[in-house]
Amino acid sequence: MKLWDKGISIDKKIEQFTVGNDREIDIHIAKYDVIASKAHAKMLHKIGILTTIELEQLLGGLQVLENEIKSGEFVIDAQFEDVHSKIEYDLTATLGDVGKKIHTARSRNDQVLVACHLYYKENLNIVREKTKALFDTLLEQAETYKDKVLPGYTHLQVAMPSSFGLWFSAYAELMIDDVFLLDAAIKTVDQNPLGSAAGYGSSFPIDREFTTQEMAFSTLKYNVVAAQMGRGKNERTISAALGSLANTMARFAMDICLYMSQNFGFVSFPDELTTGSSIMPHKKNPDVFELIRGKCNKIQALQSEMVLITNNLPSGYHRDYQLLKENMIAAFEEIKDILDIFNYSIQQVIVKDVDINSDLYKYLFTVDNINTLVMEGQTFREAYQKIGGQVQDGTYVPDMSKHHTHEGSIHNLCLDKIRNKFPE
Amino acid sequence: MKLWDKGISIDKKIEQFTVGNDREIDIHIAKYDVIASKAHAKMLHKIGILTTIELEQLLGGLQVLENEIKSGEFVIDAQFEDVHSKIEYDLTATLGDVGKKIHTARSRNDQVLVACHLYYKENLNIVREKTKALFDTLLEQAETYKDKVLPGYTHLQVAMPSSFGLWFSAYAELMIDDVFLLDAAIKTVDQNPLGSAAGYGSSFPIDREFTTQEMAFSTLKYNVVAAQMGRGKNERTISAALGSLANTMARFAMDICLYMSQNFGFVSFPDELTTGSSIMPHKKNPDVFELIRGKCNKIQALQSEMVLITNNLPSGYHRDYQLLKENMIAAFEEIKDILDIFNYSIQQVIVKDVDINSDLYKYLFTVDNINTLVMEGQTFREAYQKIGGQVQDGTYVPDMSKHHTHEGSIHNLCLDKIRNKFPE
Amino acid sequence: MKLWDKGISIDKKIEQFTVGNDREIDIHIAKYDVIASKAHAKMLHKIGILTTIELEQLLGGLQVLENEIKSGEFVIDAQFEDVHSKIEYDLTATLGDVGKKIHTARSRNDQVLVACHLYYKENLNIVREKTKALFDTLLEQAETYKDKVLPGYTHLQVAMPSSFGLWFSAYAELMIDDVFLLDAAIKTVDQNPLGSAAGYGSSFPIDREFTTQEMAFSTLKYNVVAAQMGRGKNERTISAALGSLANTMARFAMDICLYMSQNFGFVSFPDELTTGSSIMPHKKNPDVFELIRGKCNKIQALQSEMVLITNNLPSGYHRDYQLLKENMIAAFEEIKDILDIFNYSIQQVIVKDVDINSDLYKYLFTVDNINTLVMEGQTFREAYQKIGGQVQDGTYVPDMSKHHTHEGSIHNLCLDKIRNKFPE
Amino acid sequence: MKLWDKGISIDKKIEQFTVGNDREIDIHIAKYDVIASKAHAKMLHKIGILTTIELEQLLGGLQVLENEIKSGEFVIDAQFEDVHSKIEYDLTATLGDVGKKIHTARSRNDQVLVACHLYYKENLNIVREKTKALFDTLLEQAETYKDKVLPGYTHLQVAMPSSFGLWFSAYAELMIDDVFLLDAAIKTVDQNPLGSAAGYGSSFPIDREFTTQEMAFSTLKYNVVAAQMGRGKNERTISAALGSLANTMARFAMDICLYMSQNFGFVSFPDELTTGSSIMPHKKNPDVFELIRGKCNKIQALQSEMVLITNNLPSGYHRDYQLLKENMIAAFEEIKDILDIFNYSIQQVIVKDVDINSDLYKYLFTVDNINTLVMEGQTFREAYQKIGGQVQDGTYVPDMSKHHTHEGSIHNLCLDKIRNKFPE
Repeated sequence: MKLWDKGISIDKKIEQFTVGNDREIDIHIAKYDVIASKAHAKMLHKIGILTTIELEQLLGGLQVLENEIKSGEFVIDAQFEDVHSKIEYDLTATLGDVGKKIHTARSRNDQVLVACHLYYKENLNIVREKTKALFDTLLEQAETYKDKVLPGYTHLQVAMPSSFGLWFSAYAELMIDDVFLLDAAIKTVDQNPLGSAAGYGSSFPIDREFTTQEMAFSTLKYNVVAAQMGRGKNERTISAALGSLANTMARFAMDICLYMSQNFGFVSFPDELTTGSSIMPHKKNPDVFELIRGKCNKIQALQSEMVLITNNLPSGYHRDYQLLKENMIAAFEEIKDILDIFNYSIQQVIVKDVDINSDLYKYLFTVDNINTLVMEGQTFREAYQKIGGQVQDGTYVPDMSKHHTHEGSIHNLCLDKIRNKFPE
Repeated sequence: MKLWDKGISIDKKIEQFTVGNDREIDIHIAKYDVIASKAHAKMLHKIGILTTIELEQLLGGLQVLENEIKSGEFVIDAQFEDVHSKIEYDLTATLGDVGKKIHTARSRNDQVLVACHLYYKENLNIVREKTKALFDTLLEQAETYKDKVLPGYTHLQVAMPSSFGLWFSAYAELMIDDVFLLDAAIKTVDQNPLGSAAGYGSSFPIDREFTTQEMAFSTLKYNVVAAQMGRGKNERTISAALGSLANTMARFAMDICLYMSQNFGFVSFPDELTTGSSIMPHKKNPDVFELIRGKCNKIQALQSEMVLITNNLPSGYHRDYQLLKENMIAAFEEIKDILDIFNYSIQQVIVKDVDINSDLYKYLFTVDNINTLVMEGQTFREAYQKIGGQVQDGTYVPDMSKHHTHEGSIHNLCLDKIRNKFPE
Repeated sequence: MKLWDKGISIDKKIEQFTVGNDREIDIHIAKYDVIASKAHAKMLHKIGILTTIELEQLLGGLQVLENEIKSGEFVIDAQFEDVHSKIEYDLTATLGDVGKKIHTARSRNDQVLVACHLYYKENLNIVREKTKALFDTLLEQAETYKDKVLPGYTHLQVAMPSSFGLWFSAYAELMIDDVFLLDAAIKTVDQNPLGSAAGYGSSFPIDREFTTQEMAFSTLKYNVVAAQMGRGKNERTISAALGSLANTMARFAMDICLYMSQNFGFVSFPDELTTGSSIMPHKKNPDVFELIRGKCNKIQALQSEMVLITNNLPSGYHRDYQLLKENMIAAFEEIKDILDIFNYSIQQVIVKDVDINSDLYKYLFTVDNINTLVMEGQTFREAYQKIGGQVQDGTYVPDMSKHHTHEGSIHNLCLDKIRNKFPE
Repeated sequence: MKLWDKGISIDKKIEQFTVGNDREIDIHIAKYDVIASKAHAKMLHKIGILTTIELEQLLGGLQVLENEIKSGEFVIDAQFEDVHSKIEYDLTATLGDVGKKIHTARSRNDQVLVACHLYYKENLNIVREKTKALFDTLLEQAETYKDKVLPGYTHLQVAMPSSFGLWFSAYAELMIDDVFLLDAAIKTVDQNPLGSAAGYGSSFPIDREFTTQEMAFSTLKYNVVAAQMGRGKNERTISAALGSLANTMARFAMDICLYMSQNFGFVSFPDELTTGSSIMPHKKNPDVFELIRGKCNKIQALQSEMVLITNNLPSGYHRDYQLLKENMIAAFEEIKDILDIFNYSIQQVIVKDVDINSDLYKYLFTVDNINTLVMEGQTFREAYQKIGGQVQDGTYVPDMSKHHTHEGSIHNLCLDKIRNKFPE
């Protein structure tokens, strides 16, 4: 049996297998475990399970831990399987038996679940803020470059006139749709699951309305079985929301990489945002945007994992749920970076002058030419055939003078209206 | 070359390949294409492109088509590649050149896109209503069976007392989370994309605010590039929402299939909802619930398809987008049936009496026993060891009298509070 | 309750729900059900359950059906839930009670499973042949265009010299990897599952070695539980294989769409393979390749569906498995068309002359210049700095004369070696 | 701008973003980079670019690094972005300019790609061996428990007699199908990509046949573009293969978790393989198997990530590919542990005596009863009705004596035949 070959006992091996990477992951939720423990302690005091002195001791002990977490001193040593054991150990080491009383009417699952709700809620709100910041930047860039023409493509073929203003603000407006999903995710986790215990509640007379207010949740996840089944379902919703935002950014990054290609040459970036090659001295590669695209695509893939872990499992807790948080938390940490870096980078964009008179782009205006004829009274078919004929026989002369007037068109971007659509 | 073997010309083959199943799929969006065409015609009249007489002719012709669609007479014959060509042909056959004027300032993509928005919006609302109906049924069943004990499992091991009331209402409350996503999807498609034309707008002076009101959209998708990029992005969001609801129902169906197993024997259903076996005369199989589960899992898989079709494509229309609607529309038709059938079936459920005194279930109450001791003043550790010892030496006697008081627990289901949480 | 609104009884509704689209799908497996029924009948005769006369009657009846299937006359009417009921009905109608004896020692699942194995095996082999045909075409095109220079890109930036020969044969060689997966899938389904009955075998003394030989399977899926669990697992493997091939073709189609863009202008196609625009008279869109890409991406998405339907289900048949075949069979029908159309279309490709002297492409050769200096004795760093300096100050002159000699490089494509690698 | 808030400069932030976790991940491929560097150095010597003395120096330097890697001393410090920079730095620090010459005719991509091929090949073979070991264990357990009856379920309903022998060997035989995919993956990576440089080969006269033999690859990935496009495509294939094996194990683990439930009670495990509860003293939870299931489901989800990262990207290297290796390598490390732990654990299984005479299981034998009547001359319909009638009126007496004779049935497991099917 290979297991013993490396001198690792089977017990050790199995322990490693069950603990996984919880020690590193849990650093991210330590802060939230303390918040929930404080609320729970106050509630236990309210219902008479803790004395006032015990409460004060516990709140004091938790405060010490909170400070350590904030300052970065807090570490989950190898002797603990997760953050919850670590905190319990510390409290008991400091306060004696009182340290253990804090888990009255609570189970480990309950602790993990409420800490995840708190982590998710705070981080979804941070992601939402950073999305708003990027949205604002894009609208500013749209304003700045609203008169710069950009060829518009369909089927990757030169099609009709577009503009940098239209391009930047398109991605801004799409982010509003992403925020709809972020808000759905926020509502989902903004419900207090604490008190669900192992998934069937507790026979202690706990006061869940109290902890809900204490932790500033908007409402309770009342049903304890539903609360427990949030494991996996919350992550499914969150990954749909983060994935949607990632989808928008990935496609934007794709445009950027394409537009940086010499064959398009529509945008460029300063050297610190591009990368050279170890063998080609002329290269200026869009690595930052390729990595944004790739990392966003990883985030898009996350939902499959969340679904597969929980799919077809009967109700009630299963240990599989422990595996949900690792990549979910990693995705949050990643997407916050992506949003910052995208926001910073897109402010550095160098918008090139596109030579719209080049032969490459002359057919951009055929539809405008046709429409002019139609407005002058010809049928669409006649106009289409006339301009089509000119294209065929080489006599076509583009009419670049056409002003587009309708809402959301190149000459009427409606940036303020888009800005106002961003959900409160 | 195989292509000619069957006497099919390459042109025919390629035509089939590009048309695909559009004729059958488009039956579902025909109604919405007519709605949009009416709104567009009125707008063209408003901006002076159609005369009043032309408008009346067009509205008359569209009304005829609308009636045919309602009555089921409308068919897309093999000579048309999609519903839009069919409608244009019919209008032109009846009205002559006026029939063609309706497409002024519009492109095929524009038509497909707005018809999809309208179809999605109406069908999302239908799905939402059916979800509400199922939610209500589940809360009624929870009320009816609130005193029937059900063993609660964790890790599929007998754990703590639960109840049918808790079980039914758990799935009801989870559906509220699904509605958050449905509402996000509704907001996403409740934006008027009409006027985006090929994705870069039109040089005609169209009035998009007018068509927005006419079609009762809440707002515009202003930016025409953003409107076009809704292709795929809308479907991504909708499939996340339908998938979330499907996830809830699939897991509920899993519980039902498990609970119908002789080894659990918690629920049963009348014969018309179960299926016999061609070789085993004793079988009563939960085929309906297995198919609900399987079909829900197919719907969960849909998002991968929507993402893969559009992923990493640069902005601007690509023909790939034509492929989005087929399985998306099929999923809508399927989930409406699933919701109806689930709602009907769960009303027929036969809740069995679980023999809670059976040896199998005696340890359900150990936590309650421990908690009683703790409430009487023992530390949790002492109480845990005492009851644990009784379990070990066989002297344990379950205390089934414990009343659970907190919100969302077996004896305090908070059904009204859950009912009130359902979003308006 | 909506269910009755449309005058459809609940029984009818549930029947529709459970039957699904089986009638249309099963047309594809009818032929294989007949093959398996013949083999089973011969085996029943061999073990003494059918008399020689009964066998002859059954084989005669099955032959009639086989002819109907071949000629396209065979239809599964609405009264039958699937092809198996239809065939049983026909045999009994013609032959009386003998028609029923054919199902001795067999269950419906057994019939579906073996028919799927046979369908999959034959169709995987067809896909493999069509892949080989495309592979051959690509190698021919590589040979034809081996001297035509194509700019090579990394990060979508102009990088180093490539060629059409290198490009065509790259996709050919990648298809060899796809064939490894196709062959794994073929081995998986080339095992006889017949005799597994409902998943636990039969107490009749059936002879599975005999049916294995009769149906030309390479071996048995011995264990009857394993045979049954092939439901879903077979589809998982097949969708991985088809998805891999689809991935290769989708990426090739992406290249083609990009290279057809005016900004690249590397390839074009005759008019019958491109599509115009309803509003832009100058357009020549690569719809065929966009649809190939999109359809290939749908096929890539299929595996998620196959996995989600079966994931976490305990062993033993579940009705969910009925849902596996619909999209699996559709994918086979689609990929066969895609392969034919790709093969036809790529033979029509118009390879353009790329103006390699254009400023756009002058840096393609910097690495070659550097390598020349290194071969002449300079260190790589010196050479890199020297050429880099020339690029900086505009004095760089490309050296296009460099001959690449190694295996698989632009001037030594090793087409024969690639051809020989294609698995037997 | 938030970026500066924490005192991190934007350059630092972007550097972190682009480096990612490469330092930790690359520890796993360090060994393979050294192997490839040795082969490349020998080849450079063969074609006259390195002198014999230079080669000896380099091989000496690489040997030192190889020893460090083996002993665990090798660390990639924060100053290096990946293992390749680290190794180059070390060689140059020790050997001076000779250290740099090793990268002649090679680029970073080339190094990463060949190291991944080598890592994947070796680890796929390890996974294959561990799969074989588990396969052998399962066949041994099947032999040991071949006479222990187990109820067989369909639709989770009690169906027909099965056995532990059938159950264990079913999963063994399914693993053969997984090995078909592992072997396809091994063939895919067992092709030498070295020499593809940045994806378009090199103008140095390198000898790729030589390095192929030196690194013991079976063949070359000839075409340099194809070699480069292996990035992502290799990972797609490997994740399909690992996912298939994970699927088998996840479903086996699901069975185990279900069978450990008190309601089934078919198997148990010693205490060290189960886990207690912090609040329920009676619990014995199957955490190890739940974690196996969950971790296997994560591995199943991996393919979506691999596909999404590369999907729809044009040919030629993109920086996105850097992101492929992180979760791919993690999956390898995980699945090796899972295989070891599964193999160890399943040897400890406690197979319970199932009381087959219990009322729960009496209908297991109805099909056997029917078949006996059919063998005695009744028609299937008569026999089915007779036994069905007995079931109805409570007079049914199970016939447990029936011997199943056919290949792969409960009384004829064909374990040797299954053993022999395992691919060489």
